[in-house]
Amino acid sequence: MREIILSFPKQFKIGFKAAKGIKVLGNFKKLLICGMGGSALPGEVLKIWLKEKEIKLPVEIHRNYSLPFNVDKKTLTIIISYSGNTEETLSAFKKARREKLKLVAITSGGNLLKICKRSKVPLVVVPKSYPPRLALGFLFSSLMKVLTNSKIIRGISREILSLESKIKLKKLEKEGKNLAKKLKQKILLIYAPEKICVLAKIWKINFNETSKVPSFYNCFPELNHNEIVGFESFGKNFHTILFIDKSQNPKILKREILTAKILKEKAVESSFVFLKGKGVLPKIFSNVILGNWVSYYLALEHKKDPLEEKLIAEFKKKMKV
Amino acid sequence: MREIILSFPKQFKIGFKAAKGIKVLGNFKKLLICGMGGSALPGEVLKIWLKEKEIKLPVEIHRNYSLPFNVDKKTLTIIISYSGNTEETLSAFKKARREKLKLVAITSGGNLLKICKRSKVPLVVVPKSYPPRLALGFLFSSLMKVLTNSKIIRGISREILSLESKIKLKKLEKEGKNLAKKLKQKILLIYAPEKICVLAKIWKINFNETSKVPSFYNCFPELNHNEIVGFESFGKNFHTILFIDKSQNPKILKREILTAKILKEKAVESSFVFLKGKGVLPKIFSNVILGNWVSYYLALEHKKDPLEEKLIAEFKKKMKV
Repeated sequence: MREIILSFPKQFKIGFKAAKGIKVLGNFKKLLICGMGGSALPGEVLKIWLKEKEIKLPVEIHRNYSLPFNVDKKTLTIIISYSGNTEETLSAFKKARREKLKLVAITSGGNLLKICKRSKVPLVVVPKSYPPRLALGFLFSSLMKVLTNSKIIRGISREILSLESKIKLKKLEKEGKNLAKKLKQKILLIYAPEKICVLAKIWKINFNETSKVPSFYNCFPELNHNEIVGFESFGKNFHTILFIDKSQNPKILKREILTAKILKEKAVESSFVFLKGKGVLPKIFSNVILGNWVSYYLALEHKKDPLEEKLIAEFKKKMKV
Repeated sequence: MREIILSFPKQFKIGFKAAKGIKVLGNFKKLLICGMGGSALPGEVLKIWLKEKEIKLPVEIHRNYSLPFNVDKKTLTIIISYSGNTEETLSAFKKARREKLKLVAITSGGNLLKICKRSKVPLVVVPKSYPPRLALGFLFSSLMKVLTNSKIIRGISREILSLESKIKLKKLEKEGKNLAKKLKQKILLIYAPEKICVLAKIWKINFNETSKVPSFYNCFPELNHNEIVGFESFGKNFHTILFIDKSQNPKILKREILTAKILKEKAVESSFVFLKGKGVLPKIFSNVILGNWVSYYLALEHKKDPLEEKLIAEFKKKMKV
């Protein structure tokens, strides 16, 4: 897995190239992105990017079977399943085909690839054999390239292609390794400012799947209205990670410091993570990779195989019986 | 607190009346609802109601200071702060006033009430002295009435006014009391099908604030892609509550049963809660009230005061220093 993380920054260029020429033309008023787990994350990052650029394009992320009721001819439906075999996403894909919606798909293989090729649905094929959560670079950059090709967004090429050089891999590895040591045998809570709450979600997913530990996330300021109550009896079992973003509202910073203090009184230890990277995408992906490192080293601390996926694979198998 | 829950079904009529004549006219393409904690929940319930009725009205819920960038003259901004003193919501309110957005507010008092009266902002005043999470009936029914008055939705009166008679309070109390006994000294995970995930969130908030226990929520099918991994070492500390909705996709039911089985292997016990109530609103509110009962009786089991709010009150005070 270490090799996968070390090569993560190369994914942006590869994903961008994989999407060359793939497009859907139309007068789209909305995007619907269908995906589960790691395959839903490119849509989440897109939403933050659009907000940062103040682009008013509604994006709905659909994490379920079938489709929401509010799609129409002015919706571009984007089907993302890294494996190509995700049951829920294939169900959404088939429904979208029956309803003759404008479609594009991103996958590394599986049934989604087969059906798209057979039916000439516009398709991006990214490299296979990665855990989906560690293929976010491929998925995100190919999504951005498809949207550029389809004239939905523009001016993204340099931003994507320069990402690789802006990520300080080895420095992040060192920080991740150190942080992992503090997290042994804890239930992990990841708290982030609302604007970048997706980072908390991505870390949570990594802790679950890579480190095999219970982990939950929430965001500021909402969590101050309920979640901070309730650590009376289990405090010492938890460890909280709080993301500090220098560019955020100072009120949020104050909330984060106060929260750590209150939790400490209930025996919950906290670690602050200062977000690295300048600009929205370097910031997101530097901290995605930091999360990969932390969860990788925490798996090693716990003597777990970070790439082992038995439980989820078995679950999927049982769903098919 | 028992009296508050027993009178909860009366809130719908009272909230509806409180909003009589309050309206904002305009050609609105979108609603922005600003609120934190319990005051954000009416917006969440509205979103489910709109989906159920297949009404294509975008609703954005804003849980932060200030306002999102994408509001404009075609947005109706709805400010909800039960106390009227929520710092984040007042910040959103002031920004909306500076930007001269179309506005309406719902509160029981505080600064929001004062400023609205002084500045003649359309305002609904609901009864005061309730914990915000237990004022959801007032807040939701007055929100629906304002939207009806403003000609944004219609035909809702009978649905709201008949709610009281459709909630079987005492039966729910008995079930809640029994369920609470199984949840003693546990970290509570609330899992619901995606379509009614808000119920899981509401129960989580009640367990935090009323029972003072750690509680987290997630929804099906997403949680099967990550959260089910990771209960190796802490399994016995958790208890999972899974909502079963008879009208849901049978695939989701299968996932819920499989999830409980897998968790059991990791020493996590589960309880199934079969959703009561026919029709979208009776279903939501019957199970909101069931959640109130469970969290109330769990507080008593733990010898905690279900109405005590010291920690959050102190937090708010410290934020003002």
